[in-house]
Amino acid sequence: MKTFFEPETVAVIGVSARNDNLSRAIVRNLIEFDFKGIIYLVGPKGGVQFGRRIYRSVVDIPDRIDLAIILTPASTLPELMEQLGEKGVKHAVVESAGFREYGKEGKAIEEEMVNVAKRYGIRFIGPNCIGVINNHNGLCVPFTPFKNVYKKGGVTVISQSGGVGMSYLNALASEAIGLRCFAAIGNKIDVDENDLIEYFLSDDLTEIIVLYLEGISDGKRLMKLAMTAKKPILVHKSNTGKLGSHIAASHTASLSSDDAVVDAALRQCGIARFYKPEQLVNYLKSLPLPRIKGNKLVVISRSGGHAVISTDECERHGFTLAQLPEPFFREIEKHFRAKVIALQNPLDLGDLFDMDVYKKIIERTLREDTVDGVVFLHTFVSQTEGAKSRELIEQVADISMKVGKPLTICVETENSESASLKRDVSHPIFTVVEDAINSLALSRDFGMGYIEPAQPPELDVDFKIAQDIISICEKENRDPMLDEAMAIFKAYGLPTLPAKIAKTEDEAAFLAKELGYPVVMKVVAPQVSHKTDLGGVQLNLKTEEGVRNAWKEICNSISCACPSAQIEGIMIQPMAKTGPELILGGKEDRNFGPCILVGVGGIFVEIFKQASTRIAPFSKNAAFDMINSLSVAPILNGARGQKPYDVDSLVDSLLRICRLKLDFPQIAEFDANPVRVRPKGEGCVVLDARIILTR
Amino acid sequence: MKTFFEPETVAVIGVSARNDNLSRAIVRNLIEFDFKGIIYLVGPKGGVQFGRRIYRSVVDIPDRIDLAIILTPASTLPELMEQLGEKGVKHAVVESAGFREYGKEGKAIEEEMVNVAKRYGIRFIGPNCIGVINNHNGLCVPFTPFKNVYKKGGVTVISQSGGVGMSYLNALASEAIGLRCFAAIGNKIDVDENDLIEYFLSDDLTEIIVLYLEGISDGKRLMKLAMTAKKPILVHKSNTGKLGSHIAASHTASLSSDDAVVDAALRQCGIARFYKPEQLVNYLKSLPLPRIKGNKLVVISRSGGHAVISTDECERHGFTLAQLPEPFFREIEKHFRAKVIALQNPLDLGDLFDMDVYKKIIERTLREDTVDGVVFLHTFVSQTEGAKSRELIEQVADISMKVGKPLTICVETENSESASLKRDVSHPIFTVVEDAINSLALSRDFGMGYIEPAQPPELDVDFKIAQDIISICEKENRDPMLDEAMAIFKAYGLPTLPAKIAKTEDEAAFLAKELGYPVVMKVVAPQVSHKTDLGGVQLNLKTEEGVRNAWKEICNSISCACPSAQIEGIMIQPMAKTGPELILGGKEDRNFGPCILVGVGGIFVEIFKQASTRIAPFSKNAAFDMINSLSVAPILNGARGQKPYDVDSLVDSLLRICRLKLDFPQIAEFDANPVRVRPKGEGCVVLDARIILTR
Repeated sequence: MKTFFEPETVAVIGVSARNDNLSRAIVRNLIEFDFKGIIYLVGPKGGVQFGRRIYRSVVDIPDRIDLAIILTPASTLPELMEQLGEKGVKHAVVESAGFREYGKEGKAIEEEMVNVAKRYGIRFIGPNCIGVINNHNGLCVPFTPFKNVYKKGGVTVISQSGGVGMSYLNALASEAIGLRCFAAIGNKIDVDENDLIEYFLSDDLTEIIVLYLEGISDGKRLMKLAMTAKKPILVHKSNTGKLGSHIAASHTASLSSDDAVVDAALRQCGIARFYKPEQLVNYLKSLPLPRIKGNKLVVISRSGGHAVISTDECERHGFTLAQLPEPFFREIEKHFRAKVIALQNPLDLGDLFDMDVYKKIIERTLREDTVDGVVFLHTFVSQTEGAKSRELIEQVADISMKVGKPLTICVETENSESASLKRDVSHPIFTVVEDAINSLALSRDFGMGYIEPAQPPELDVDFKIAQDIISICEKENRDPMLDEAMAIFKAYGLPTLPAKIAKTEDEAAFLAKELGYPVVMKVVAPQVSHKTDLGGVQLNLKTEEGVRNAWKEICNSISCACPSAQIEGIMIQPMAKTGPELILGGKEDRNFGPCILVGVGGIFVEIFKQASTRIAPFSKNAAFDMINSLSVAPILNGARGQKPYDVDSLVDSLLRICRLKLDFPQIAEFDANPVRVRPKGEGCVVLDARIILTR
Repeated sequence: MKTFFEPETVAVIGVSARNDNLSRAIVRNLIEFDFKGIIYLVGPKGGVQFGRRIYRSVVDIPDRIDLAIILTPASTLPELMEQLGEKGVKHAVVESAGFREYGKEGKAIEEEMVNVAKRYGIRFIGPNCIGVINNHNGLCVPFTPFKNVYKKGGVTVISQSGGVGMSYLNALASEAIGLRCFAAIGNKIDVDENDLIEYFLSDDLTEIIVLYLEGISDGKRLMKLAMTAKKPILVHKSNTGKLGSHIAASHTASLSSDDAVVDAALRQCGIARFYKPEQLVNYLKSLPLPRIKGNKLVVISRSGGHAVISTDECERHGFTLAQLPEPFFREIEKHFRAKVIALQNPLDLGDLFDMDVYKKIIERTLREDTVDGVVFLHTFVSQTEGAKSRELIEQVADISMKVGKPLTICVETENSESASLKRDVSHPIFTVVEDAINSLALSRDFGMGYIEPAQPPELDVDFKIAQDIISICEKENRDPMLDEAMAIFKAYGLPTLPAKIAKTEDEAAFLAKELGYPVVMKVVAPQVSHKTDLGGVQLNLKTEEGVRNAWKEICNSISCACPSAQIEGIMIQPMAKTGPELILGGKEDRNFGPCILVGVGGIFVEIFKQASTRIAPFSKNAAFDMINSLSVAPILNGARGQKPYDVDSLVDSLLRICRLKLDFPQIAEFDANPVRVRPKGEGCVVLDARIILTR
């Protein structure tokens, strides 16, 4: 990977002497950024540009070529790759478009290109990308003109979209945050985000990796890389919903995966996910500061109104205002010339105008034991207080670093003044109170991903029974039926209610008596998934007459609602005791593999739409966390004098569900729903089950 | 009010020849903004400033004075007001601080000042404010130096904080949004936000009123003004939480009112509430555009990545991507030079570089029937495409206005280029995709406040019974007890369970038999509010023995948990049938008067913390809306094949609760909780009640 960013010689392929030639911008960028290597130009028509010869082919260049930058029509790529191979070039950035993102024809060209590249062992970034930048050696090869306005620094940006990547670069430039490298990966057919993450994790100059992704190439590898990373990784994963999926599919031919799974996976491996450029900027600006170690802030403000707003924001982000002791206030009070504003936190500087005193107050506050961080809101007019303010800011920034607690400085001044402060001062400067507090919150919360070794406990399960049932289903090319699914869950130690299948009305009456009234009846039919909706369920039947009527009603409802359904029988179960209902389940995610969820269950699962997801395997503690993150957790744990429910048994069931999924990768989707939870000590019980196999 | 903003003569009081004199900045601002009236300077030491005489007193000025601007120590104010009175000055802006916001001493001075002002009929803005601006006549009197960088326009800003007001002004300046007037109202002791709102609603040059408030002076008047307003009113009401309230109390001596009530009240009268400056800016930028009439957008983008992000944002904000018909695409296709990107919505302009074609595509899309609005994401480099882009933007902006559908333009270019576009183009220019979509959403949602004539239906209630009970309680200086509260609700037509109070264990056994088993027992004691928590409730008692045991247990629990409680008896009720539980209740809000809520009830009311609030009175439709906005609404309305519950009876009860509150203003707080809802046709029933009176 290193050669992509540290080449000694570069060939720009696709240059012509024409005015509207796009490749000229690539060369111009290399010159503008003062590239430290040697630049060669290539174009079929030859000629001269920028005082340099345009070679007709890369093979004509009388030098070794480390990296080729290609911007020519898609159709020329297979032939060009062939030439690179002959010449011994091993690395290329393909900026051309017109491949798989534009249908069959493009896909065929793409495959040909990939084959040639493989044959010669050529690695390439792209196609359909705007290129790469190394801000430390001047390698800047996008095909749009760039200005060299980027501070040198430690932020590396990897983007699946050139346009969005440019937005990030603009944001870095206007906040004067230092850039290390940039790579637009486009269709990422060969080199993908994981290859680059791996490289930049080992790159000494990269301090943080920021990604924009529309699709994730290999979720498992991404998680593995992130789990061992010693640098923060931030991801904006777009393409989250239903509306977006078809565009991304054709835009960079990426497929969107279930967003909840992405979210769970990223959190699990410690990757911070952001959604808006302002969050990225706020987080990046928190990095130079000492990390906040607690929740107690002091707000020091010249403007009372901003102090009030900052208090709202503190509360919104889970901060508290530090309690300051009396001696602190007595000491501060000495410094006040006039005593117009009450001494409290937020500390309103009111009509105190002496910057030296500000410095003393800020230092004293940072050193106070009960304080974890300080927010300084400084309103000033550059004309009268610009120079003094700048001096103050630099001094208190130093103090913050020395004391080891974050000081967030937010200025309210003319736009030109704040822009120049951002440029000149190494300490981050905010201009919006909300951003300053958000930055502290992000630095507190990001990278707090729960990276724990996934050590699921040993569980006693009957693999053989489950395997036998699943084998039969696979042989018969069908999914397990209700009773089979229940039997599989039972084999894995999940508590299930006894259940028998009746094939006839008489048999139903007989089985109901055997199991004991009251009973529940549920249709068993491979085509019927949402049984309740279609009238396939009858509850609390207390007599034989009730059971016989229910038999007729269920058969009628199902044959009306779903004429194609083959009713295999009706399941008879004893009526379960009441209790909150949950869903335990999971699926095989294309990208991240087995994932498991627990959520609010029963018939309301789709109304509340609340579930907690993890990638398997996970530990017992993680299972507890999953349940405790649900909104029903306070109820489960016994709210307001009510008895707590049996969360332990729910956790055990969750771990067994997880084990089942890991043992049988052929399970595509499955759930136990509802699982009814009984008071502590009485366990939980699976009332209904569904297993769908991969065919 | 007009004189505050359109004076012909102004006296700036507090000017001296000293260098650090703050009032000098006021005069400098008037000069910088080219004030169209006459400026006089006043200061006790006399002298000369800016080539003008400093009069020793306002009475010495040989001219009529329309408006006095005062920045002198608080202690001088009573005397100064006296002088204004003598001189016949009727309007003043008091920028001095040191009044009620700084304790007793300041409050005394303030009262004296107010008395003098009243005696002479002087109206004043402030104290403790930074002043006012009229951007159309150059009246600019803040005591910090301002630069004249504001476009003339229709936005009037009223702010309780000078600092926050300046933030808004900076935001307007950097987005080149036109300013009409600005007023910082500080402690708002005389002139308050309502006085100014009333004035600016009638001011021809004001198109929109933006407020920053930490406390609301008179909620009822605010609602009345807003309900008849023909201009949008936007409010940032800060000081929302517990952390903030004590600062605001001392900062501008405003008291914070319950935020949920504020929220309900603002919505009810059509005021749009915003929380961050960026929301304000996004909304203001939507105003010049035709208002969006539906939810169907088309995104036209040069950058595929931004198109994907915009799709995520569309979904988040409840927009859909318009379905475009085949003939539309066939027509568009004609214009594409190369056919690299698939034709769909978002429409990726891909490698099409002809701005004339862009114009045609945008116009064609705007004119398409199925399209409500268009988002145009334009990525360009100023050096090569700046001039052409500017021309395009102006042309398509015109088309949007002609067609009468909003076109939101978001540019991705150098910061300097986007800044100059914002300045020069009258159409709003966005630089962040998220903001562009947010702007359309705000324009759709804001001002959709449900301003409806509050016509509660006629209800048959027994006022007399309720009045008698309340009178007795008032005479005895206590709150109604449980059985009295139930009787009051019953008198107002709320369905309640029969309930009897037992004074002894034997009586309890007797009453239980009379009411019929199973029964519920609840302690009746004025000191015990959260009965369940303290063991004061026993459910589902089926036998006399159970009742007798329950009696002992309740008495024991209560005397342990709350030794000071006087047990007046224990209420015996038949056990109610099951069903979802809600809370209906209300309170007298200091600011907005009677407000009523419905929420998730029972013992989980404080876990879910979900309620819908309105200011009384309201209509039957509003009552339905309140219930339907709860997360449990789908359950109440019959989700997934379940029977619906009796929402009609719940609505009826809500209206009766509302009527009760309106009839008895002395009710400080009250609730029926839980109210259990039965299936449709079976009504609902109040199981427990609490009424607290104002003493």
